[in-house]
Amino acid sequence: MCGIFGVFSHPEAANLTYLGLHALQHRGQESAGIVSSDGEEYYSHIQMGHVVDIFKKEILEKLKGHMAIGHVRYSTTGSSLLQNAQPFLVNYFRGYLAIAHNGNLVNYETLKEELEKEGSIFQSTMDSEVIVHLIAKSNSNSIIERIKEALYQVKGAYSLIFLTENKLIAARDPYGFRPLVLGKIKDGYVVSSETCAFDLIEAEFIREINPGEILIIDREGIYSDRIPSDKPRNSFCIFEHIYFARPDSIVFGKNVYLLRKNLGKILAQESPVDADLVVPVPDSGIPAAIGYSEESGIPFELGLIRNHYIGRTFIEPKQSIRHFGVKLKLNALKDVLKNKKIVLIDDSIVRGTTSRKIVKMLKAAGAKEVHMRISSPSTNYPCFYGIDTPTRRELIASSHTVDEIRKYITADSLYYLSLDGLKKAVKEDKNCYCYACFDGDYPVKFPKILKKLELTIF
Amino acid sequence: MCGIFGVFSHPEAANLTYLGLHALQHRGQESAGIVSSDGEEYYSHIQMGHVVDIFKKEILEKLKGHMAIGHVRYSTTGSSLLQNAQPFLVNYFRGYLAIAHNGNLVNYETLKEELEKEGSIFQSTMDSEVIVHLIAKSNSNSIIERIKEALYQVKGAYSLIFLTENKLIAARDPYGFRPLVLGKIKDGYVVSSETCAFDLIEAEFIREINPGEILIIDREGIYSDRIPSDKPRNSFCIFEHIYFARPDSIVFGKNVYLLRKNLGKILAQESPVDADLVVPVPDSGIPAAIGYSEESGIPFELGLIRNHYIGRTFIEPKQSIRHFGVKLKLNALKDVLKNKKIVLIDDSIVRGTTSRKIVKMLKAAGAKEVHMRISSPSTNYPCFYGIDTPTRRELIASSHTVDEIRKYITADSLYYLSLDGLKKAVKEDKNCYCYACFDGDYPVKFPKILKKLELTIF
Amino acid sequence: MCGIFGVFSHPEAANLTYLGLHALQHRGQESAGIVSSDGEEYYSHIQMGHVVDIFKKEILEKLKGHMAIGHVRYSTTGSSLLQNAQPFLVNYFRGYLAIAHNGNLVNYETLKEELEKEGSIFQSTMDSEVIVHLIAKSNSNSIIERIKEALYQVKGAYSLIFLTENKLIAARDPYGFRPLVLGKIKDGYVVSSETCAFDLIEAEFIREINPGEILIIDREGIYSDRIPSDKPRNSFCIFEHIYFARPDSIVFGKNVYLLRKNLGKILAQESPVDADLVVPVPDSGIPAAIGYSEESGIPFELGLIRNHYIGRTFIEPKQSIRHFGVKLKLNALKDVLKNKKIVLIDDSIVRGTTSRKIVKMLKAAGAKEVHMRISSPSTNYPCFYGIDTPTRRELIASSHTVDEIRKYITADSLYYLSLDGLKKAVKEDKNCYCYACFDGDYPVKFPKILKKLELTIF
Amino acid sequence: MCGIFGVFSHPEAANLTYLGLHALQHRGQESAGIVSSDGEEYYSHIQMGHVVDIFKKEILEKLKGHMAIGHVRYSTTGSSLLQNAQPFLVNYFRGYLAIAHNGNLVNYETLKEELEKEGSIFQSTMDSEVIVHLIAKSNSNSIIERIKEALYQVKGAYSLIFLTENKLIAARDPYGFRPLVLGKIKDGYVVSSETCAFDLIEAEFIREINPGEILIIDREGIYSDRIPSDKPRNSFCIFEHIYFARPDSIVFGKNVYLLRKNLGKILAQESPVDADLVVPVPDSGIPAAIGYSEESGIPFELGLIRNHYIGRTFIEPKQSIRHFGVKLKLNALKDVLKNKKIVLIDDSIVRGTTSRKIVKMLKAAGAKEVHMRISSPSTNYPCFYGIDTPTRRELIASSHTVDEIRKYITADSLYYLSLDGLKKAVKEDKNCYCYACFDGDYPVKFPKILKKLELTIF
Repeated sequence: MCGIFGVFSHPEAANLTYLGLHALQHRGQESAGIVSSDGEEYYSHIQMGHVVDIFKKEILEKLKGHMAIGHVRYSTTGSSLLQNAQPFLVNYFRGYLAIAHNGNLVNYETLKEELEKEGSIFQSTMDSEVIVHLIAKSNSNSIIERIKEALYQVKGAYSLIFLTENKLIAARDPYGFRPLVLGKIKDGYVVSSETCAFDLIEAEFIREINPGEILIIDREGIYSDRIPSDKPRNSFCIFEHIYFARPDSIVFGKNVYLLRKNLGKILAQESPVDADLVVPVPDSGIPAAIGYSEESGIPFELGLIRNHYIGRTFIEPKQSIRHFGVKLKLNALKDVLKNKKIVLIDDSIVRGTTSRKIVKMLKAAGAKEVHMRISSPSTNYPCFYGIDTPTRRELIASSHTVDEIRKYITADSLYYLSLDGLKKAVKEDKNCYCYACFDGDYPVKFPKILKKLELTIF
Repeated sequence: MCGIFGVFSHPEAANLTYLGLHALQHRGQESAGIVSSDGEEYYSHIQMGHVVDIFKKEILEKLKGHMAIGHVRYSTTGSSLLQNAQPFLVNYFRGYLAIAHNGNLVNYETLKEELEKEGSIFQSTMDSEVIVHLIAKSNSNSIIERIKEALYQVKGAYSLIFLTENKLIAARDPYGFRPLVLGKIKDGYVVSSETCAFDLIEAEFIREINPGEILIIDREGIYSDRIPSDKPRNSFCIFEHIYFARPDSIVFGKNVYLLRKNLGKILAQESPVDADLVVPVPDSGIPAAIGYSEESGIPFELGLIRNHYIGRTFIEPKQSIRHFGVKLKLNALKDVLKNKKIVLIDDSIVRGTTSRKIVKMLKAAGAKEVHMRISSPSTNYPCFYGIDTPTRRELIASSHTVDEIRKYITADSLYYLSLDGLKKAVKEDKNCYCYACFDGDYPVKFPKILKKLELTIF
Repeated sequence: MCGIFGVFSHPEAANLTYLGLHALQHRGQESAGIVSSDGEEYYSHIQMGHVVDIFKKEILEKLKGHMAIGHVRYSTTGSSLLQNAQPFLVNYFRGYLAIAHNGNLVNYETLKEELEKEGSIFQSTMDSEVIVHLIAKSNSNSIIERIKEALYQVKGAYSLIFLTENKLIAARDPYGFRPLVLGKIKDGYVVSSETCAFDLIEAEFIREINPGEILIIDREGIYSDRIPSDKPRNSFCIFEHIYFARPDSIVFGKNVYLLRKNLGKILAQESPVDADLVVPVPDSGIPAAIGYSEESGIPFELGLIRNHYIGRTFIEPKQSIRHFGVKLKLNALKDVLKNKKIVLIDDSIVRGTTSRKIVKMLKAAGAKEVHMRISSPSTNYPCFYGIDTPTRRELIASSHTVDEIRKYITADSLYYLSLDGLKKAVKEDKNCYCYACFDGDYPVKFPKILKKLELTIF
Repeated sequence: MCGIFGVFSHPEAANLTYLGLHALQHRGQESAGIVSSDGEEYYSHIQMGHVVDIFKKEILEKLKGHMAIGHVRYSTTGSSLLQNAQPFLVNYFRGYLAIAHNGNLVNYETLKEELEKEGSIFQSTMDSEVIVHLIAKSNSNSIIERIKEALYQVKGAYSLIFLTENKLIAARDPYGFRPLVLGKIKDGYVVSSETCAFDLIEAEFIREINPGEILIIDREGIYSDRIPSDKPRNSFCIFEHIYFARPDSIVFGKNVYLLRKNLGKILAQESPVDADLVVPVPDSGIPAAIGYSEESGIPFELGLIRNHYIGRTFIEPKQSIRHFGVKLKLNALKDVLKNKKIVLIDDSIVRGTTSRKIVKMLKAAGAKEVHMRISSPSTNYPCFYGIDTPTRRELIASSHTVDEIRKYITADSLYYLSLDGLKKAVKEDKNCYCYACFDGDYPVKFPKILKKLELTIF
């Protein structure tokens, strides 16, 4: 997953982008980068690591200009290398072009092969680079036409921000998998993956970039164009609501915190427990646990204390640290849990290994019973649109029944929110979400068998 | 403030110390260090920064031996320089000696002056170095006697761990200001500032090191000695309970989380509010807010979302970042707060600047009323025993009435927990805490006017 | 200027390349790089700086495989940036390709423009990259054909070494501007800019790569092909003999040291002086000074002592250091020079500023007379084939008479070797050298006005 | 060996010191450091490596003030660690004190032991630190008296520069082992190991600091005091003339280049050869080779070409590189040497391994005969006064006859300059040099058996 941010027409464009990326840090912790421009020169700083560690005063001072785009990355395609960090800046026949991409292109390998056959040389192993080559190959004289030509050819999930000599261009794939929002700050405009970045810099949230929209911002003002495509149905990623987005963001028109709390309430209705305490897996399970507690009347208690000097389980790229991470990150409160019947709330179960460790930790701390409640349906299918889920084989729910999972994680009971319950919570009446990770109904087909699929047990 | 940790007789002494320091990271984020030994050689790595960033695999592999001590530091005396980071390792006439210190010596400058007059040359500006010079100057042949001679001369707060060629020695000042606990792991022993470090490494918590105790651990086993002193009354730092220690630690015999939750309950009894929501300042205000909510029946709600990629307000050494930090760290949830009457819970108010920003942020997000409730009495006096409070002049409560503070922070009402309420919560019947920051009754007098005092308005 | 080196079929290919580059360090000190391969994977390390500082043990250990190419660079085109350092390694449709280039392409900008129009995206601003794109664009299935197709299109000076999955390919432009030699080491082959690299690794010097030759080395053995071209006359760079190559190399079939000494002898015949001492500008003037001394019978004396912790005047990229450099690098021996008539020998005068400083330094040290003798004709024209001479305007000899130059450098007399004298020394009977820097007769015309020319005063 | 430099009363004190250290770089390449002061604050930068690599613009800008001292180090006592780099800066009872030391104290270990017994704690393993502790222990109120008290106790070789709040103090041991000279620059004074540093900064050479002199420079002016001692005979290090000092320095009142050339002349008188060429081992053998050539009439020829990107054999601290170094550093000119009878000139033979490699290299290049001539007597004894010679066992001349050495180095003949010849060259009539490395007559006795002696075969 990644976070993207852009500013047009503000004297401190790079500083705002730095703050915006900081607010989007939860979307990617592997690398961060900013490319800025004053319309004459381009300034760029991209580095592995966290935003606060990378952008020191002297670096920000070098990122001059009234326009900037930024990117925080967690790898989906391409290895964890600096050459794969974004924004991706190139100098081609028509000048400089910088691009920041959130999403995943499913026909990347096919397109790359075709381009290379015609003599293109790739600098990275990122799927995003293919868009740049398609733009460079286009014969059109207008950058907008070149972008449209390129985006017509790529398939999959993409929210994009481009920076040219005189324009900031935002684009969102016709399905609208990933969020992308527009804001206003003084005389300038800002574009961001999530609204929480606008709150930090005190920008005004105007609206979402629409699925299939190309939004062009330049000295003339702001205007829209469309990516050529059969208008497909909307396919907003439901996992942005469940797990990925920050609780203080408005995503796909909904407040994330309240939605998550509501998932907890519906969960309490669907699966009540006779228990003493509602305990969240911090921090991701907290909103649903508050909702469950409110609906059930069972007291909410912080039975697990989190060490915040680590980061987020889902997001660290090294497998070894992820396993060790549960102990490094969470500690159970014996004096709170002893002899208590616990409802344990989390947002999802991926491999089951973390849940198993947490349940065991609670029991070792004296909990009499642990009833696990998950505020989403069981994750049965991998994501090909930008969420870094493992292959199907590794998803415990793809090959085990709920009771088998319950036994594995050593819980006294286990219940997943129903898909209907989830749809009720998001008020899904227009069929505008992608639930592929739950039901396997993938909105965009894959022209080629992808690695994750090869390993699956369809 | 600092955190200290030691291991004796374990094949992975440095690895355990690394984990222990990670669990104690909240006690100091400026530098971290480990000194280990196999009884022949000493191995040392000390660096500015966080534990997880400093101790990579290749560094831990070099820290050989069955004994180790570690330290995380937030500066109280001495500047933020590597030469002031600990453990402090020296080679003197009788061999090597490493020391890790949590606390603050009030007669450091006097002792340093005397030692320098006799020709001692100091390498750092840490108060802890004076202990090492006193040990080096002693004529006694026994390291225990040399330590006793040195500690007899220093005044103030100290929890100490020493590492010699064949011993791990723990000592706690006769007042017992700072915590220090003993644990057991397999055939070895561990010493730590807090018990949360034992939970992580699955060590068994045995007991506290007593005030005035010197605990010697070597191949022969474990035995106690005493620091020569008139046995003073115990003076446990109440702020360890209120703010400093981790909620999952047992400190001075009490579970910190439950104690903080109880402060919230008493606060609700002392100062009820007709409100819609109880909102904590995360993370420090959460336990008290849960207690307040439970006692009052007003729903607990996460109205402020914290960005965890920053750290802890209290602990960053640079003033400029601290101010900017409130916005970088917290965001208000408009959809939750709009038109609501809020009880805002925090553990303390130091300068008032942060509280003011938070109250304003809640109001800007639409809150109708903000009633601030503090789960400790007002902080009127600076600490000289190791907590990095500012000078008296900077403590807003030292020169302003509660109503003046309320106006400054723009709250609709403000109430501090009473000192009696606090004493009730800690079941203070034996008069064993230091409340100097609240009542100015300093257990250890200062032989010399210290800088913080010079600036105060006594 | 640059130095290139390659090894095929030796178990320590990267180590040999490291040593080879060390021997070629005088050809470029800005950056150094090695790309090695075992036929499966490519290993690469390229860095700004000197060979000895860059290639530490742990880096060399990572450069595995039986094939390697290396490069040391002093920038001729492209700025002093890491992205412009070589070898240049790309992954294109037909696999990996690495290239190391010494020379300068005069039609680089035209070719780049054409390639970019067709959609190619350049990663660097080096002229060498154009060769790679031309290879990638070729439809031929044979790498040799693709290289021939590419080299047919580029114009100018190039000695090249390519590394593919299973071949080492060396090529030298049809004019033969830059040297390139073939050697044998055990069962493997080595290719180098100069023979001095063979001496260091104890390889046997076989022969020069011929002008216009493409030499292919693979598991089958070694065979030659030709770059398609009208066979032009040879145009060996005379400046390799005069200044650039190491005195212990055999270049264009001649021993450089003896040739330079001979230039000094002819200079003594052409322009004798009644003097007390022959003093060289160290180190470049030493061989000619020994020759002058031998021929004239005037004693040779080290009147200028060089500080070797600096580097070579000609080669440091920063102008400011070059000026300061004369004092940092040379010191005059007062006790030797006092009241003496001096013949001062150097190989060339570029801007005149350095010579002026040296003459003044000698006079300040007490020299009675300073008679400057230059062991080459006056440098009137800029080089477009790889030597980093300044623009014509900056070449003092392009706009000043010998007497004007003598006055500027404050010498008592000044004499340049005649072009005939030079031709006599190199036994020029077959007209096989490029003397363009002396006579302006450029063997390869430029399809486009180059920057250096724009600034000149033709 | 080390080089030291100091400036008093110049607005660019640190810049001058930087240049001075650059000129003294040949005296030590392991580390370099500068401490400057404006009388209020001290500024310090000390790092492993070469002067040009360490002192960048931004570092020099931080080294403010009108006073500075600097040091370049090659380790004699103490390991190659940053903590052992100088200048050594401490804060003791009477303020700050910085010290730069060239030489070696023979009673360091005894004094250190005594100081540690009294409670002093050492920060480094340098002998120089003992001087600082002795100064700190002194009860005298005058810094001059404290320095005199300290220097009275230390034995051995030392040239020292101290920097205090308001004084620059230079001192030279009563024997005068190491050089130390005084210069004037505008209104300020400079002190340096060698005069070549004065030439670079255009300072005027005034005089040597006398053996046993303490020279104090402050706002009042300049005055002298004496180190309390029985005035011993002068013992100037003869090796400074033969090898260590730069040829363009005036050392002990003599021009080093002319002296070395004269050694070559006397060598030619003592041991003529019927040969074709005189070839120096560059760079150290060049002056003597010019002298030998002049005296004998045999032509001087550069038969060995040196690669200057390495450094000086004698001075690299790692043994492995020293061995490899001969090939990395020198290359023989086949076309010059073939079938020739060679007189090979070097300044000394230490272990014999390098000479052996060079002779073999000449023969492999085709030399018919190689007659080695050494411009100093055979080195039979180790130095304890600051030159980093190996232990006696490793000195080939201590246990082998001249003919055995000749066989080992594979030369056709070998001759060392006679001690009488050497004395004639330095016009030794007042018996003012230390020849201990040749005759074993050590001017300062050792209170304790030193490591180098323990290994010797007396």
